[in-house]
Amino acid sequence: MMTEKYAEMLELLQNKRYSELMRQMDTLNPIHCAEFFEELERPQQIMVFRMLKKDMSAEIFAELSQETMENIIRSVSDNELSAIIEELFVDDAVDMLEELPAGMVKRILKTVKPETRATINRFLSYPEGSAGSIMTAEFIDFRRNMTVSQAIAHIKKTGDDKETVYVGYITDEKRILQGSIRIEKLLFSEGDTLLSDIMNTDFVCAGTHDDEESVADTISKYDLPALPVVDAEGRLVGIVTVDDAIDVIEEKNTEDMEMMAAMTPTDKPYLKTGVLSTFVKRIPWLLLLMVTSTFTGRIISGFESALSAFPVLIAFIPMLMGTGGNSGGQSSVAVIRGLALDEIRPADVFCVVIKESGVAILCGAALAVCNLLKIMLIDNLIFHMNVGTVAAVVISLTLFTTVLVSKLVGGALPILAKVTGLDPAVMASPFITTIVDAVSLLLYFGFAQAILIK
Amino acid sequence: MMTEKYAEMLELLQNKRYSELMRQMDTLNPIHCAEFFEELERPQQIMVFRMLKKDMSAEIFAELSQETMENIIRSVSDNELSAIIEELFVDDAVDMLEELPAGMVKRILKTVKPETRATINRFLSYPEGSAGSIMTAEFIDFRRNMTVSQAIAHIKKTGDDKETVYVGYITDEKRILQGSIRIEKLLFSEGDTLLSDIMNTDFVCAGTHDDEESVADTISKYDLPALPVVDAEGRLVGIVTVDDAIDVIEEKNTEDMEMMAAMTPTDKPYLKTGVLSTFVKRIPWLLLLMVTSTFTGRIISGFESALSAFPVLIAFIPMLMGTGGNSGGQSSVAVIRGLALDEIRPADVFCVVIKESGVAILCGAALAVCNLLKIMLIDNLIFHMNVGTVAAVVISLTLFTTVLVSKLVGGALPILAKVTGLDPAVMASPFITTIVDAVSLLLYFGFAQAILIK
Repeated sequence: MMTEKYAEMLELLQNKRYSELMRQMDTLNPIHCAEFFEELERPQQIMVFRMLKKDMSAEIFAELSQETMENIIRSVSDNELSAIIEELFVDDAVDMLEELPAGMVKRILKTVKPETRATINRFLSYPEGSAGSIMTAEFIDFRRNMTVSQAIAHIKKTGDDKETVYVGYITDEKRILQGSIRIEKLLFSEGDTLLSDIMNTDFVCAGTHDDEESVADTISKYDLPALPVVDAEGRLVGIVTVDDAIDVIEEKNTEDMEMMAAMTPTDKPYLKTGVLSTFVKRIPWLLLLMVTSTFTGRIISGFESALSAFPVLIAFIPMLMGTGGNSGGQSSVAVIRGLALDEIRPADVFCVVIKESGVAILCGAALAVCNLLKIMLIDNLIFHMNVGTVAAVVISLTLFTTVLVSKLVGGALPILAKVTGLDPAVMASPFITTIVDAVSLLLYFGFAQAILIK
Repeated sequence: MMTEKYAEMLELLQNKRYSELMRQMDTLNPIHCAEFFEELERPQQIMVFRMLKKDMSAEIFAELSQETMENIIRSVSDNELSAIIEELFVDDAVDMLEELPAGMVKRILKTVKPETRATINRFLSYPEGSAGSIMTAEFIDFRRNMTVSQAIAHIKKTGDDKETVYVGYITDEKRILQGSIRIEKLLFSEGDTLLSDIMNTDFVCAGTHDDEESVADTISKYDLPALPVVDAEGRLVGIVTVDDAIDVIEEKNTEDMEMMAAMTPTDKPYLKTGVLSTFVKRIPWLLLLMVTSTFTGRIISGFESALSAFPVLIAFIPMLMGTGGNSGGQSSVAVIRGLALDEIRPADVFCVVIKESGVAILCGAALAVCNLLKIMLIDNLIFHMNVGTVAAVVISLTLFTTVLVSKLVGGALPILAKVTGLDPAVMASPFITTIVDAVSLLLYFGFAQAILIK
């Protein structure tokens, strides 16, 4: 749908019908305008960008890809650049600066006003992943003795430069946060009501050093348009808006999934990450897991004589290890996710163990019975593998106990990780599998020696 | 922090200081009030609920747990029940009805007004997971010939019953959606401006049968407070607000993780799901994967003679299969996530294959070299496993090719799934592992026969 529109606009540009092009861009939202920019050649990008009205150009600029941003920054004058940066919300400016090459950052910080530079530098100093690092300084600020009419007039006057007008914050003369008020509350109240009489004093807020994920969870839990962020003295220094919270949630989920699959999390999109940096994120875990699987190899070597007496047992090693890994992986991911969504707390560890035991007994029994039938009816009758009845029982018994152990380990380890301050997501399938592989082999050979070989 | 507050409020209740309790609850937001309710005994819940002001009681009711809702519904009169339901937003009412026992649903639908019943029934009829199933009917509705002052007056008059006042929609006499307007635009415009002159006509909207996940993605992409939903004729029938979008995003992520770990997704929290229903979600996949691992067993059986000639090869089977599974799992999860975030499109399949090949060659080479060194320096020198040089080369060669194949299969299968309409998340570690297990064994024994045994 938009593709046709962009083609039409490109034609206007090529036919030099600039005023018609500007008229069309005026009706588009900034995201679509930015998408149109990505379709243009580099010189065209500069030309069109220069035609834009000032307020529009900053809005669109914030939505551009890094390449296009760099192209524009390289081509505009210091004055033009300063004007763009001054118009950006400080969180967008900071996000941009974190990605740009050092030379450009230097030039930008040199061209902007000293106040802006101070604010940007303060925001850049918050640790990555903290509330401070994702907040913005542009919020609506009220005083408690304002009336509703004054507050609305204040929004009309200053709101255009704020990241959101849906909620304003009441601070005292020391900038200590006193309360919040939503715009609908202002609209539904009489004009002469004092803000102190209607402001919400049961508000939630975050500290600048709080984890960005807990900020996002709070915004989601309380359905807030924005969450205020205060410094150690309780002074309001910024807000995090709901759209930034969504980005944090998606990033956190990506990170969790990457960790679950034994990768070091990256914050770049898949196709924008180079082969080398992807390699660096993946190889340490593969090496670690390869080395730990040495134990599994040692266990097998230790039982070589048992295996040469009953070579048919070898054929079931992959099935036992695989089922153990899958069973443990199911439990660990269910618990990791429950912890992430705050549905499970460390104190629930006994509920988790009891539940996983129940599920494991059912799963283990079902799998053991099916496996016994499969060996008798398929492996022996169709494939003539000649697995003896006692050997089949050993295999099914191992299967049952492996599932039991896997599900308990899978359910308990993420909680243990949480308690010890590790990220539970590390305790997912690859890690669990390595433990379960060793356990299942020990059980297998233990049962084999006790029952088969004696 | 809130725990102390709730204890204090509980004391007020026990000392029968009801008006003070109500005063305190009045200053709390509905989420905290609902949390307080969960701390109360059942008869206390009813008592406190009856004391609440009508508008407050509906707001709190929507936030209660299902058990508490059921307790209250059982205890109130038909009139009281009808009043609560009429005050609820229709999406909250529908969510609640979907969870309640059939008898209660019947009673509720009997007590509400016929119009409300019709609306609820219409909303209940939208397929699960569709935009219609998560939207709400309470939105701000403007006409194009309204002035800004009229629009603001309209919000003041009707906004209190709307799910959001941050954006309003302009429809014509046939209720066809014409444009949208944010409240800040109204505040920043002159009172006599016509809405038709300032409304946003480059709006995005969803159809009632669109997937709820694409609705959430659109809200996130365009940073919207709400997304309008239209029927097949383009008539505006509801909106989905950003807080509902966050819930959809979290649910979708949970589902993806569950599928990646070979579980059928569930929409209930971990601790609220019974042992039996958890078993039912997990066992089909474990059975399926167990049966498919029969192939792996068959491959091993087929090479029994090679293994008895070189029994040392057996000890490396778990390491080879494990590393293959982990390598493939990394690639598949990276691609699954890229697809979910729309960072990778099916057309990018060649970029993915090229990138994964590059990463695989680097990872495979690094692992192969480390493995060779490990066998020579640790396994042979320390553990005296006596792995011959040629056998060590066979193992490392298998490792390299297994990593290559795993990463290609892991990268390509999720895209193939997407193209054929399957959920890419199914193609995660457990599924990939099963394929890679078989491939790695075939490669292993192939190389062993070609190089070692000849």
